Amino acid sequence: MSQHTNQSWGGRFSEPVDAFVARFTASVDFDKRLYKHDIQGSIAHATMLAKVGVLSDAERDTIIDGLNAIRGEIEAGNFDWRVDLEDVHMNIEAKLTERIGITGKKLHTGRSRNDQVATDIRLWLREEIDVILAEISRLQDGLLSQAEQHAEVIMPGFTHLQTAQPVTFGHHLLAWFEMLSRDYERLVDCRKRVNRMPLGSAALAGTTYPIERSITCELLGFEAISGNSLDGVSDRDFAIEFCAAASLAMMHLSRFSEELVLWTSAQFNFIDLPDRFCTGSSIMPQKKNPDVPELVRGKSGRVYGHLMGLLTLMKSQPLAYNKDNQEDKEPLFDAVDTLRDSLRAFADMIPAIQPKVEVMREAARRGFSTATDLADYLVRKGLPFRDCHEIVGKAVKYGVDSGKDLAEMSLDELRQFSEQITDDVFAVLTLEGSVGARDHIGGTAPKQVRAAVGRGRELLANR
Amino acid sequence: MSQHTNQSWGGRFSEPVDAFVARFTASVDFDKRLYKHDIQGSIAHATMLAKVGVLSDAERDTIIDGLNAIRGEIEAGNFDWRVDLEDVHMNIEAKLTERIGITGKKLHTGRSRNDQVATDIRLWLREEIDVILAEISRLQDGLLSQAEQHAEVIMPGFTHLQTAQPVTFGHHLLAWFEMLSRDYERLVDCRKRVNRMPLGSAALAGTTYPIERSITCELLGFEAISGNSLDGVSDRDFAIEFCAAASLAMMHLSRFSEELVLWTSAQFNFIDLPDRFCTGSSIMPQKKNPDVPELVRGKSGRVYGHLMGLLTLMKSQPLAYNKDNQEDKEPLFDAVDTLRDSLRAFADMIPAIQPKVEVMREAARRGFSTATDLADYLVRKGLPFRDCHEIVGKAVKYGVDSGKDLAEMSLDELRQFSEQITDDVFAVLTLEGSVGARDHIGGTAPKQVRAAVGRGRELLANR
Amino acid sequence: MSQHTNQSWGGRFSEPVDAFVARFTASVDFDKRLYKHDIQGSIAHATMLAKVGVLSDAERDTIIDGLNAIRGEIEAGNFDWRVDLEDVHMNIEAKLTERIGITGKKLHTGRSRNDQVATDIRLWLREEIDVILAEISRLQDGLLSQAEQHAEVIMPGFTHLQTAQPVTFGHHLLAWFEMLSRDYERLVDCRKRVNRMPLGSAALAGTTYPIERSITCELLGFEAISGNSLDGVSDRDFAIEFCAAASLAMMHLSRFSEELVLWTSAQFNFIDLPDRFCTGSSIMPQKKNPDVPELVRGKSGRVYGHLMGLLTLMKSQPLAYNKDNQEDKEPLFDAVDTLRDSLRAFADMIPAIQPKVEVMREAARRGFSTATDLADYLVRKGLPFRDCHEIVGKAVKYGVDSGKDLAEMSLDELRQFSEQITDDVFAVLTLEGSVGARDHIGGTAPKQVRAAVGRGRELLANR
Amino acid sequence: MSQHTNQSWGGRFSEPVDAFVARFTASVDFDKRLYKHDIQGSIAHATMLAKVGVLSDAERDTIIDGLNAIRGEIEAGNFDWRVDLEDVHMNIEAKLTERIGITGKKLHTGRSRNDQVATDIRLWLREEIDVILAEISRLQDGLLSQAEQHAEVIMPGFTHLQTAQPVTFGHHLLAWFEMLSRDYERLVDCRKRVNRMPLGSAALAGTTYPIERSITCELLGFEAISGNSLDGVSDRDFAIEFCAAASLAMMHLSRFSEELVLWTSAQFNFIDLPDRFCTGSSIMPQKKNPDVPELVRGKSGRVYGHLMGLLTLMKSQPLAYNKDNQEDKEPLFDAVDTLRDSLRAFADMIPAIQPKVEVMREAARRGFSTATDLADYLVRKGLPFRDCHEIVGKAVKYGVDSGKDLAEMSLDELRQFSEQITDDVFAVLTLEGSVGARDHIGGTAPKQVRAAVGRGRELLANR
Repeated sequence: MSQHTNQSWGGRFSEPVDAFVARFTASVDFDKRLYKHDIQGSIAHATMLAKVGVLSDAERDTIIDGLNAIRGEIEAGNFDWRVDLEDVHMNIEAKLTERIGITGKKLHTGRSRNDQVATDIRLWLREEIDVILAEISRLQDGLLSQAEQHAEVIMPGFTHLQTAQPVTFGHHLLAWFEMLSRDYERLVDCRKRVNRMPLGSAALAGTTYPIERSITCELLGFEAISGNSLDGVSDRDFAIEFCAAASLAMMHLSRFSEELVLWTSAQFNFIDLPDRFCTGSSIMPQKKNPDVPELVRGKSGRVYGHLMGLLTLMKSQPLAYNKDNQEDKEPLFDAVDTLRDSLRAFADMIPAIQPKVEVMREAARRGFSTATDLADYLVRKGLPFRDCHEIVGKAVKYGVDSGKDLAEMSLDELRQFSEQITDDVFAVLTLEGSVGARDHIGGTAPKQVRAAVGRGRELLANR
Repeated sequence: MSQHTNQSWGGRFSEPVDAFVARFTASVDFDKRLYKHDIQGSIAHATMLAKVGVLSDAERDTIIDGLNAIRGEIEAGNFDWRVDLEDVHMNIEAKLTERIGITGKKLHTGRSRNDQVATDIRLWLREEIDVILAEISRLQDGLLSQAEQHAEVIMPGFTHLQTAQPVTFGHHLLAWFEMLSRDYERLVDCRKRVNRMPLGSAALAGTTYPIERSITCELLGFEAISGNSLDGVSDRDFAIEFCAAASLAMMHLSRFSEELVLWTSAQFNFIDLPDRFCTGSSIMPQKKNPDVPELVRGKSGRVYGHLMGLLTLMKSQPLAYNKDNQEDKEPLFDAVDTLRDSLRAFADMIPAIQPKVEVMREAARRGFSTATDLADYLVRKGLPFRDCHEIVGKAVKYGVDSGKDLAEMSLDELRQFSEQITDDVFAVLTLEGSVGARDHIGGTAPKQVRAAVGRGRELLANR
Repeated sequence: MSQHTNQSWGGRFSEPVDAFVARFTASVDFDKRLYKHDIQGSIAHATMLAKVGVLSDAERDTIIDGLNAIRGEIEAGNFDWRVDLEDVHMNIEAKLTERIGITGKKLHTGRSRNDQVATDIRLWLREEIDVILAEISRLQDGLLSQAEQHAEVIMPGFTHLQTAQPVTFGHHLLAWFEMLSRDYERLVDCRKRVNRMPLGSAALAGTTYPIERSITCELLGFEAISGNSLDGVSDRDFAIEFCAAASLAMMHLSRFSEELVLWTSAQFNFIDLPDRFCTGSSIMPQKKNPDVPELVRGKSGRVYGHLMGLLTLMKSQPLAYNKDNQEDKEPLFDAVDTLRDSLRAFADMIPAIQPKVEVMREAARRGFSTATDLADYLVRKGLPFRDCHEIVGKAVKYGVDSGKDLAEMSLDELRQFSEQITDDVFAVLTLEGSVGARDHIGGTAPKQVRAAVGRGRELLANR
Repeated sequence: MSQHTNQSWGGRFSEPVDAFVARFTASVDFDKRLYKHDIQGSIAHATMLAKVGVLSDAERDTIIDGLNAIRGEIEAGNFDWRVDLEDVHMNIEAKLTERIGITGKKLHTGRSRNDQVATDIRLWLREEIDVILAEISRLQDGLLSQAEQHAEVIMPGFTHLQTAQPVTFGHHLLAWFEMLSRDYERLVDCRKRVNRMPLGSAALAGTTYPIERSITCELLGFEAISGNSLDGVSDRDFAIEFCAAASLAMMHLSRFSEELVLWTSAQFNFIDLPDRFCTGSSIMPQKKNPDVPELVRGKSGRVYGHLMGLLTLMKSQPLAYNKDNQEDKEPLFDAVDTLRDSLRAFADMIPAIQPKVEVMREAARRGFSTATDLADYLVRKGLPFRDCHEIVGKAVKYGVDSGKDLAEMSLDELRQFSEQITDDVFAVLTLEGSVGARDHIGGTAPKQVRAAVGRGRELLANR
């Protein structure tokens, strides 16, 4: 029984917890990461308890001083985390009581570990979201600079990985900017629901002490108070919603990565990625591998996995808190770390990529990328679009067989397919003509790219 | 070759598509569901084309009349969907040309199937989200009525499925109300990102026609225009975000279901579920099974699966549109149907459940559910919480061994554990005393339940 | 109440099932697909019941004749499926009783729908697995023929999508052969666990009738009888294990697809894919898109999703049968259809792809693909491998800067990096020398490819 | 550049790796766990290289001695792992060269990190599977003992969590035995595919050295040699297949857990779980929570998540090795740890659970659990089963209304529903009669339970 003396719940038990079970069920190895937010929450709780008269001001001050000292110890690496104390909360509280005596035991008045941990993790996640938002903005800023600089660089646009139409490199970069804007929005929306305070829910039903939840809410900077205590202690939506938003963001980075991997291949050879973002091979001396994008692409899987793990965790759990919920932290921690580091790697890397302008241009020049322009030209001559499509399709077939791109055919060759074609056709078959003509919001024309960069800059400035 | 004559892209091909491949790659069997929104989009597109002078007004009118007639045919069940025409778009366009001749071929000017399908599915999903939001509100309304009616009914609150503290049934019902409020919010947030218009992105780069995207945007009621054409045709975030929100909502319904299944078991016997929501057994004549909650619980899996399927679908796809994206529809359709029908079943069922008040009360009375109240009582007598916890733990152990609940012990028995206990203790050990004392926002007191119902009613009224 | 008269469990109910609930909980729309196996199981059950004396021989014959007639009706499209009868089992049984009168009601003696549906779905899946196994073999056979034919064709081997070392195209194709061999094995292993008979488990506890399970087991071709009735009715492992094996197979096809998409791009241009496996674009007349591999790549997501859906379905279900389990069928059906059709598409397509030998060779020639061979050459001259790696790394850097591949440098240039290099070096820098030298089991040498084809043929022959 | 001097691939690079990138892409923090198997593989490789003449016997011995010394250092905690050396392989190799000089650099001859890591992880997983198999057997052994001891204890069997029919507790326990048997089989099947040797695949194409793969295969105890080098370095099926098998096993444990949680609730109260497997509450002094089953139930999610993560990882990766694959380890490690520890917790706990025989019996006695027996009784009197079902359904409805179980009705009451009922009916309505009558393989009769225990013992003995 002696091993129970320091525990928070030993009274009604007749045998100690099995040693393996104690280790298996303890969370301190990973939840100690929350120490700062646990102390932050406890200080707010003690402050409120003093305001409503449950603690004296002197007790409050003793508690706060003790907690601050413990934070110092932890940050100095002098804190001895104990598995037999189960979790971060009991470790800190036990140390507090050791330091300040019986007053330390009063801190837990009017709360439970159930609402305490729910509060801690929301404080922690709120802070991490802000870091992630800043990294997204940094990456987007890099994209805007690159897009502006390369607004006129022409590359092939692909659908089905087949050459489709010429686009500008700046335009292509801005597609990623758009995706990241949605990721940013989603995290902002998610943050609203993270930033609600369960503290005061106590174990599940609220507490009999005259707590004032609005005081702790204000002290901790929460936007709102959770409206139901049963829900307050068992809600893990915020963690799942975060992982869903993170999965979408990682999905975007994986698409981005896929393109960088393609573009650094010898076959595409569209960009240069500085050596410092690559590694080599232990056996093949010539290798320079795009490790960062490959790894980020691979890491999308782990975040998807965490999302699925958390959804499974909550599936069909009855109210209110169940021990299962302890399993919410590691996936969430790892999702946060993975997304933040992946964004950081990209935010560092993107400003350093260099397009190989001539290679891109040559790739765009081939593959009948202006076929649609020829069809549109014929429409302007009065033919219905579907017929023009058929005419150009035949011209392309001729080009495949004869090894000529459209711009390489003579006027006579082109007129085999339609007599509407005259020598003004060659202007529309140029790459510059093609991209410049797509001149509406969202289009690939350099002018539109610059306008979009302007709008992007404004968006970032207003965050 | 003849089978290509009606197709939209046959010109450059030298052999027809393999028959199995044609079937394997066609989408009309499922995307015909989008017919109404496809026609809606086409009408707006034609209207815009006329405004900018690409179509004459007469052409526009002919097209719109033709499309309306086709919608009528489809709704009357007289439309012959053809797999060889691949998808809903080509089926409708082919029929239009058949009806109105060469003008029909002009409708596709300045757009592509890539932006067309992205537009259709957003219009469709926007409408479905509105239906789902209405079902959530209906279910929430039923919860509020039940909660108000049963604000004073006492039941055991559980953590770890062990009796924890008494709560009111109304309070318990409101926990679900809270979850559904977050689901509602998430869908409203998601809807913002659904309600953006990709039309005008054309195949991937925009178009050379003088389109005015703001006109179609307004005609179709979109909130914004997608800012980048490459992104516009390849973005499927909105479908994934919807599936994530739907997964969370289904997770809540699965938790709700779990409780209903528990509560209708002989062991809990907390509620009565009307026969019309149950089915029987082909072999066991006495069975009355809570099929609806069981099935909804099971259906959470399929929505999680669709979320995972869509995340996988998009993983590491390079820009812009790839054929993979055709796989976005069936999971999304099924996620929408599953969520909507599950909500509907719950919205119908919840107003009909009846708590078995005496059974609940008796369950709450047992299991030392007021042990925390005793500890709080001792705190008010001046002891630190942690010591009170230890004292009550010992009293509980005594109760387990002697078969007595706390309220059944004599004062002398209770005073074995602490001399601070006096005969005012019995008031705090009553169920009414216990729930009534948790009287702060989010707490289980009947007064708080009624206040929360009031806030809930206001929330619904302002939607 | 009248709507209950045809139902199998109406006796204890006091109101009919709600109309929406009846539709929501019915499964006949999808489980009618099992009709053939349901009848097969019923015939075996009736035969057994007659053997043990529960039915007379005449009753048995009447039942069997009735069931055969019903199968005929269904296959002729003359069967009227009724949603109010819930599922395939009750539809068939009701029709049987309609046909043969009171004897039809005796068929259900000693069984329940719980063991009946578990039996049906195993019979169905066993048959589908056999079809899938045959498609895998057909696809593997196509790979062997292609590998043999192209055993000497040289292409670049990639790691990190960077040129690594030359490999033979035959060798590359055989990598896919290996993956498919594992998929085949896994399905064979899965089939053992599918092929066990739950029939006789009745509702959950077995039956009081003197059934002989070994008789039905033999009649239905099961390998073993499930050993516990509670498990027998609630086990869905076999469906999940199938979906896991199917997910792995789809993962392989998605990798295969990725390569085909890359190889048909203008940038790689490694193979020719016949027009009949491609489709075009409605707007870009030049497009020829590799739809089949793209779609198969996308379809991997839906099978992953079904796996996750089924795992979620079963998570934390208590024994024995719960209504949730009705949700097992649609994901399983769709996983089967998707895998079978994807394999079929590949088995049709693979024999038709044509390598562009010269393009592949030229790609292999560039990118310093024989750098490892140079390092190995230096090892044979007595240097430690790690030092050779460093030397060659420097030579490659010189090559990148000067625009020369290793084979294009003069002996003097090469000797800058190591004096061990003599003019026998040029033999090892040829592509043929490089691939031919990797001459051990699993290596890329043409000789090894042919040996592997031989082993593969033998494997297929022994299936 | 100096930081590259110890790296295995610095030759062709012109700038060092970015510090954050170095940390982001390094794996040594987690892959050092493979040190023992890395050294085991290297010793076998060196032994083979000596046999084929690539190393001298003296070199081999020096290498082996060096590796053994390094293993000793690692196990003594004296090894300084360096992140700048990226991974476990380079850390060990660098240390070896530091220890034994230039000969250390020869160890990497004829292999690559690509085949090295694939070999290490298979050796590691093979060993872990064996540990897991032993834990499954231990848990199954505990189930057999409990089942034998409680072969005659009667409890209610549930479907839909509604009382269905009486079953024996021993029978119920054996349902779990069956599930675990399938888990065992699946892991044995998986192990076959784990136990194949990729070593000799080198980077992707095999090697030019005269290696003999059969020698390393035998030394390392592999069952077979991987047949294709491109596949050998990129295959991660074995890890996914393991995670799928682990997910199924965790699913079973989650179902098992759900029942234990239900059974320890006050409402069921079917079993006693010793205190050492439970923990308490920091706020509610009376709580004794079934933490172990709750936590295991929750942990199912993380293993599902890892499965999904790995499937995503491999989705559409082209051949051969990509950096993404580095992400295979952490999920696999955690899946192994989670399954092994969860099994261990259950194997410790199950022998200690105690059924509350009287509570179980009383629960079985109520709820019309013998209704099916009454129907079967009527069938034996000559009525068709479906009619009997209807008759008993009416009797149950009468019982619900009058508050009587079937066995509590008088003969006259029962005869209201069918005149076929005579006073021999009461024997079939007893619990013992009910369970004893289900006397066939897989049935719930005590005799069948004992027979099943016997078969189970034999199965375990033959493993």
